[in-house]
Amino acid sequence: MRVAFQGEPGAFSEAAALQLLGERIVTVPRATFDSAFSAIAEGAADALLAPIENTLAGSVVRVYDLLLESTLVITAETILPIEHHLIGFPGVSVEQIRSVASHPMALAQCERFFRTHADLRRIPAEDTAGSVRLVLAGTDRFAAAIAGRRAAEHYGGAILAEDIQDSAENFTRFVLLRPVASTAPNARKMSLAMRLSHRPGALLSSLEPFARHGVNLLKIESRPIHGRPWEYQFFLDVESESLEALEALEAALAAARAATSQLRVLGLYVAARAGLGQDASLTK
Amino acid sequence: MRVAFQGEPGAFSEAAALQLLGERIVTVPRATFDSAFSAIAEGAADALLAPIENTLAGSVVRVYDLLLESTLVITAETILPIEHHLIGFPGVSVEQIRSVASHPMALAQCERFFRTHADLRRIPAEDTAGSVRLVLAGTDRFAAAIAGRRAAEHYGGAILAEDIQDSAENFTRFVLLRPVASTAPNARKMSLAMRLSHRPGALLSSLEPFARHGVNLLKIESRPIHGRPWEYQFFLDVESESLEALEALEAALAAARAATSQLRVLGLYVAARAGLGQDASLTK
Repeated sequence: MRVAFQGEPGAFSEAAALQLLGERIVTVPRATFDSAFSAIAEGAADALLAPIENTLAGSVVRVYDLLLESTLVITAETILPIEHHLIGFPGVSVEQIRSVASHPMALAQCERFFRTHADLRRIPAEDTAGSVRLVLAGTDRFAAAIAGRRAAEHYGGAILAEDIQDSAENFTRFVLLRPVASTAPNARKMSLAMRLSHRPGALLSSLEPFARHGVNLLKIESRPIHGRPWEYQFFLDVESESLEALEALEAALAAARAATSQLRVLGLYVAARAGLGQDASLTK
Repeated sequence: MRVAFQGEPGAFSEAAALQLLGERIVTVPRATFDSAFSAIAEGAADALLAPIENTLAGSVVRVYDLLLESTLVITAETILPIEHHLIGFPGVSVEQIRSVASHPMALAQCERFFRTHADLRRIPAEDTAGSVRLVLAGTDRFAAAIAGRRAAEHYGGAILAEDIQDSAENFTRFVLLRPVASTAPNARKMSLAMRLSHRPGALLSSLEPFARHGVNLLKIESRPIHGRPWEYQFFLDVESESLEALEALEAALAAARAATSQLRVLGLYVAARAGLGQDASLTK
């Protein structure tokens, strides 16, 4: 299976694809989310792995937008802990390092490390894995980069300092997108996109069927729709309590459909739980 | 009034503060959101202006987190169109420019510009306004940066190309935070934070009172709470349809309080509408 992702080889998205699907897949790096989403239609990939939310940064709005524009379906999810490491040339110690490159968000997530190493020069880069590639392709042995473990492995870098991010609770949830649904027998989590007109009670009428049928609401988010004043796009993740309750989910969907101007099932899949380097925090 | 903001002088947050409060305020730049939030307690500022959501990037999760940790109150909001300009030395033309510095998010939001100027070198920076400062402090006359108009004015740069972002629908909503509420007579918008235990129907019971009392729901967002499995933090923006309906809002609040494990009013304020360079898209 060929799996497209946004980023350079060694990126967190690639690590998530391998965590979910095993080491035998072929990963297809793409520069932008837009080009990652078009990889399947171009015949360059069979599936796409995209980040959908991060505990520190929130929802990945661009991915939600592209998901709505596309006809791809969520068939699985996986949760990756985002651990930042200081990566450089083998044999060099942290004390010898003079400059550290990475994406500004990664630099900002390692404030404590920079405070205790105040003489380090911060070099902003467009990509975490890409900054490792650039450092190791260079000649400055005292330059380092901040990225995930996979980037170090991919470019032959050494981890000079481990887990240097401020918060241990940095997780990203990724979804696997495919052209057609391939539902696992124990799939009980469903992602939905719905449109509501903006009147008091509209959201309520659409949520009521889920509550009535014992379906849990895991996530809800509203977004204004441009060019359509007073209409809202809602993204929901719901989960039925048992496999028997899947019928309840169907019944809830039918009732919710009547209360919305548009309702689309983005996918039915198995919820990621703790284990295999995963953490359930995001889905709890 | 002294108003703290995150960023360098000339940042979009500073422009938003001036748009909301006029040119006579004193702005207090702070390097991080954390230090901006502590500026009032330190006696360095009387108020704080913080971005809370962007149409392209979504909610600013860190600001929501800090808002929950603090006792500051939202007293006003303002919506700023995010317009990216190419800024450089006066007298230089776009065709002469060789390199363009900015925050990676700003670089990414100007893809079309870079596609039509394919020989430009992209230089990632930690800050949009800061990249203008660095370019103009340098000696390379053919270097430029991408930032807002205010950064050009502040550092004496020239706008070499106007409005080069891909999407015209790039708006950021900012909130003004103060130690005590100072409610305007026509304030009808309210921001709320509430905690719900995760059982079917919990959200529904908390929203029902608003619908029953004719209160509009403008925004809703759920976030998992770390260390508290199956409990959720919800952020809501609601608006009563008329001033008379403020009583209804109070009644709805009291009923919602009974249905939640925790409910906090983050502020009651006047909703930002179109006009004064503002756009209602985000609040519609």
